[in-house]
Amino acid sequence: MNSETIRRRIRAIGRQLKSHGLDCLILTKRANVTYTTGFMGDDSWAVIIGGKVYLVTDSRYTEQAEKECIDCKIVERGDSLAAAVAKIAGKKKSLRNFAVEKSSSVAVYEQLKKALKVRLKAVSSIVEDIRADKDTGEAAKIKTAISISTRALALTKPYIRAGVTESELAGMLDFQMKKLGAKNGFETIVAFGPNASRPHHQPGKRKLKKRDSVLIDFGAEYEGYRSDLTRCFCIGGATAFYKKVYDVVERAQAAAIGIMKDGADMIEVDAAARKVIAESGLPVYGHGSGHGFGLEIHENPFLKPDGKGTLKAGQILTIEPGIYIPGKIGVRIEDDVLVTKTGSWVLTAKCPHRPYEIG
Amino acid sequence: MNSETIRRRIRAIGRQLKSHGLDCLILTKRANVTYTTGFMGDDSWAVIIGGKVYLVTDSRYTEQAEKECIDCKIVERGDSLAAAVAKIAGKKKSLRNFAVEKSSSVAVYEQLKKALKVRLKAVSSIVEDIRADKDTGEAAKIKTAISISTRALALTKPYIRAGVTESELAGMLDFQMKKLGAKNGFETIVAFGPNASRPHHQPGKRKLKKRDSVLIDFGAEYEGYRSDLTRCFCIGGATAFYKKVYDVVERAQAAAIGIMKDGADMIEVDAAARKVIAESGLPVYGHGSGHGFGLEIHENPFLKPDGKGTLKAGQILTIEPGIYIPGKIGVRIEDDVLVTKTGSWVLTAKCPHRPYEIG
Repeated sequence: MNSETIRRRIRAIGRQLKSHGLDCLILTKRANVTYTTGFMGDDSWAVIIGGKVYLVTDSRYTEQAEKECIDCKIVERGDSLAAAVAKIAGKKKSLRNFAVEKSSSVAVYEQLKKALKVRLKAVSSIVEDIRADKDTGEAAKIKTAISISTRALALTKPYIRAGVTESELAGMLDFQMKKLGAKNGFETIVAFGPNASRPHHQPGKRKLKKRDSVLIDFGAEYEGYRSDLTRCFCIGGATAFYKKVYDVVERAQAAAIGIMKDGADMIEVDAAARKVIAESGLPVYGHGSGHGFGLEIHENPFLKPDGKGTLKAGQILTIEPGIYIPGKIGVRIEDDVLVTKTGSWVLTAKCPHRPYEIG
Repeated sequence: MNSETIRRRIRAIGRQLKSHGLDCLILTKRANVTYTTGFMGDDSWAVIIGGKVYLVTDSRYTEQAEKECIDCKIVERGDSLAAAVAKIAGKKKSLRNFAVEKSSSVAVYEQLKKALKVRLKAVSSIVEDIRADKDTGEAAKIKTAISISTRALALTKPYIRAGVTESELAGMLDFQMKKLGAKNGFETIVAFGPNASRPHHQPGKRKLKKRDSVLIDFGAEYEGYRSDLTRCFCIGGATAFYKKVYDVVERAQAAAIGIMKDGADMIEVDAAARKVIAESGLPVYGHGSGHGFGLEIHENPFLKPDGKGTLKAGQILTIEPGIYIPGKIGVRIEDDVLVTKTGSWVLTAKCPHRPYEIG
């Protein structure tokens, strides 16, 4: 990230503030603070005022902020964050229309309202909407996160064998990502057999059996940016039914990816995957078909039946249809896809779907 | 956890509501939802009204809620969480004074206000203050988390050798905890050499050298409850200065633990540790001397110079003094201590401080 990148982001936010009639925006969400300052630590806020960015942090983080921040003024707070914001704002007495993010806590809102003594709106999605479009620096970090995840899964495959627990296998995959210099992008899901029918299953003590199936939903975080993949495996050969389900999920995913491009209607992309599953007679998944990711694991845009809008070149989304039959089977295939002017590019192509029968 | 435990918690909350003149409390913080319902999933709220508890969740979690919830009515929401709460509240038309937690987002507050059409206060710490006192079931889970962490660190020790990176060592420790059936209680800190002078250091690519020092701050999460320990090591023998620093930190910790008991003034416990370090002429740490933990990694009570109140038997706190000299050294020793009627019990005693010189 360089100075020009940050300035472009701040200009984009500035245009939104102008259209909302706002003089100042106070960001409390960590991903938005990182996006506007470069700072990767905790417990800090960004204040955007008159085209300038201030990072309000404390003495624990000043050294880190000086290393990481780009084009922003670092304010080391004495007492409360709200008091520090009031001090910054106090220098610009002509400004009256302040806003804070709706994701901020009520406690923070009340403190700011008291400290600032100005009109304080709560607004949503201003920075999130801008973050939906990834720049090349962001895409490069996501690609690194993907390549680390791909390598980590390859290194973990030898441990997918009878006797391993879900929790242990998740731990081994996480270990490989950390060994490769990344962190977990989110809590790894490992589900054996019918546990895979719960999309939010937490890895537990269940041991892998011979002729069992495995679902792994995981991702790395590299320099703040994430990857998000799901792969499924069968130990000692898949049943005919598993093969059928797997084929349908893979075709559903291909159908959605096939129509992705700049300007594509997001409802149509979502519907394309669902249609393939519905036509097979198998149950259609209850979750979205995909979502943006980056500084957060779920961020705009979201592909869902009641979504709206069109895809834009530069956006990166998961495409992740699944088929779930409680107590019986769960198969999901999730790839990360970059939208281009003329189509799309599957960034996770080097992490193959097949062969999924192992051991 | 059993039905009587939950009922005792709800009665304690009920007394607080009465003293605040409130008819209904809406809990959005995950730890507080778990505490009042037993439910361990995400995206769900608890509503406490007339001595009854409702869990508002969605179809993804209904099966899990039915397994986990104790003595509470499960409400599967159709549309928004706020609408579901309004429906529950609507059945009790005489009730007018509602409250939501101050940690809730402004967005949630606004939605509830719109849906409920009642007075809606924002309150803080009602459930947090009750959670500060652990019951025997909670203590048992914390003890299991501690014994898993202790075992995991023992299994990780052979990997503390020249060439390993901070990130890899953190990953190995996390793997061992997962293999033993727990999760990370929080993001493991591994800091080599002078990196340990930053209490919030993130494990990175730095490789361990011969005659290097290591700081590891870690904990497990077992059935929702955490442990929190810090241990330091020196590879191939410690310098005389490191030994001096280590001794002072250990004596500071012992001084604080030595005066812990039911009724002890929390400021005095905090001060006892600081005094030993100040008298040694070494720099006194900027963070608190300890904190409660359990469903969250940092929770009431907090030991700090401007704290207030007294310890109570049954509370479990970390005691974690440290000495930090930027660019030079960082040593922190952190144990988990149960307050008793007559003194205290170091629950982490089986994870020894010494020998800290290894390899």
